[in-house]
Amino acid sequence: MSETPAIAAVDWGTTRLRVWLLAGDGKVLAERRGDDGLITAREAGFSNVLERHLAVMAAPETLPVVVCGMAGSRQGWIEAPYVDVPSRIDAILQGAIRVPDTTRDVRIVPGLAQRQADAPDVMRGEETQLAGAALPAKGQHLVCMPGTHSKWVVVEDGAVTGFSTWPTGELFSVLATHSILRHSLGERPAAVTAGNEGFRYWCRQALEDGGDVSSRLFAIRAAGLLQDLKPDESAARLSGLLIGGEIASARRRHGTEGGSVVLVGSGALAALYAEALALAGLQIRSVDADAAVRAGLFAAAQENGMIARKEKTT
Amino acid sequence: MSETPAIAAVDWGTTRLRVWLLAGDGKVLAERRGDDGLITAREAGFSNVLERHLAVMAAPETLPVVVCGMAGSRQGWIEAPYVDVPSRIDAILQGAIRVPDTTRDVRIVPGLAQRQADAPDVMRGEETQLAGAALPAKGQHLVCMPGTHSKWVVVEDGAVTGFSTWPTGELFSVLATHSILRHSLGERPAAVTAGNEGFRYWCRQALEDGGDVSSRLFAIRAAGLLQDLKPDESAARLSGLLIGGEIASARRRHGTEGGSVVLVGSGALAALYAEALALAGLQIRSVDADAAVRAGLFAAAQENGMIARKEKTT
Repeated sequence: MSETPAIAAVDWGTTRLRVWLLAGDGKVLAERRGDDGLITAREAGFSNVLERHLAVMAAPETLPVVVCGMAGSRQGWIEAPYVDVPSRIDAILQGAIRVPDTTRDVRIVPGLAQRQADAPDVMRGEETQLAGAALPAKGQHLVCMPGTHSKWVVVEDGAVTGFSTWPTGELFSVLATHSILRHSLGERPAAVTAGNEGFRYWCRQALEDGGDVSSRLFAIRAAGLLQDLKPDESAARLSGLLIGGEIASARRRHGTEGGSVVLVGSGALAALYAEALALAGLQIRSVDADAAVRAGLFAAAQENGMIARKEKTT
Repeated sequence: MSETPAIAAVDWGTTRLRVWLLAGDGKVLAERRGDDGLITAREAGFSNVLERHLAVMAAPETLPVVVCGMAGSRQGWIEAPYVDVPSRIDAILQGAIRVPDTTRDVRIVPGLAQRQADAPDVMRGEETQLAGAALPAKGQHLVCMPGTHSKWVVVEDGAVTGFSTWPTGELFSVLATHSILRHSLGERPAAVTAGNEGFRYWCRQALEDGGDVSSRLFAIRAAGLLQDLKPDESAARLSGLLIGGEIASARRRHGTEGGSVVLVGSGALAALYAEALALAGLQIRSVDADAAVRAGLFAAAQENGMIARKEKTT
């Protein structure tokens, strides 16, 4: 690492964390990933975990650090109170909270809260991805952010106006592990990848059923008993039903009149959602989630005066 | 027990069993319940478990036994192969399989299989409840049988023509125990009972949403964080969403043009479903599930010549 970093950017989730050292123009100088997320850090101490990673990365002792994610929750390092929607995205970043009693300047970006009587919702971390997703400053954009708890966000003229959560990844996991479907999916179901015919078929079915997927779950077990459905096929079917169901449900909730969605994801899951969104007839603009959270953290450092505002090279 | 029993009737499920000694007219002479269902009996031996219960009940050594439920599955005592739908209900009962190498005459009623390409389904035990539900011999009837795996069955002129399963009880259990909602429902959520306002409200919401409930699950967690929703309220909300969702979904699948449903259930769960079905605007005829399975087992004994056909007193 010849170039001097200007900021350390940390995406600190429940079960894992990622640290990047970024130059003054946003360029990535170093990266580390760890499984010492919130759960581990609560035991080991947030400062200890962070300093250990920074030491390995040979970060200067005075390097400021900007953090997003669950480290800012009530169970985290220090609570960065939710910003209520509607809110401009730059105003969210400006609400970063400084961690007290640290030698370094460490700030945590707040999450978002939707205090709607019948549709309360929260996010932590995705707001920073949104900030880095390079959405056009004008117009209405529907953003899909798949994951354990998928978020669908409506952004209008640079402000988040509403969002909802579908616990699709978690549903897959608890059904595969703890429900009768564990007999169908087996101990280690193969990862479902884009192009899988069973995924496509059942995704289409869930889209047609308008998000009503509970009627199709037990049939996976019955198909194993009566039609010799294999574990990998069972996993693809469950995944197709849940993701198709999420998209159908999100369309009902948020509307997709424009017919286009910004998909913020990465890797195999992003490819799976891209396929499902295409099956739903939606146009997709894909944004890499890793690049987005990095860019969002960099923007947060700028918004809070932790680094000088410069043109980014990329 | 002064009167001599004519038959022992056993409802043998996955986790529990019930045994009744019935007189020649169907009257209940004795009853026992045990938690030695399929899982326990696979270890202890089905014959051993049965004989132990019968001995405690002082049943004669030659008393014939008629069984329904998971004891007839491939993992059970002996497999009673599924009868395919459509099938007349009396023909299902006549398909009872005799357990070999027992001194007693023990027969197990088969389950039902629906070998439909996109909607395969199976049941074991509910077919016997159906047989005992005293459905009119003519006409079309939609039967709702709530439980871990709720069954909705279409019966036409005494024949099962189709059915579907909603894993509503299991969804509640795995979400309450293993998902992020465990933080909302707490260690021991109170049982949700009929009349609960939160149950009613969210049941109505799920009915309006047409069975799309996945969009409402994470909001239970968010309502705990933002609106101080209590564990008991969270449980009522989850229950209302899932049961309302099941009913909306079943209406889409099976239609409820007649506007009436036969509800075969018992206890608090039956009361909860009765309330939800009423919220959906459906007329209900309630049948007690315990009485129904007993009557169905008695009918199976008659259909298989294990006891003489006589008029039942009740």
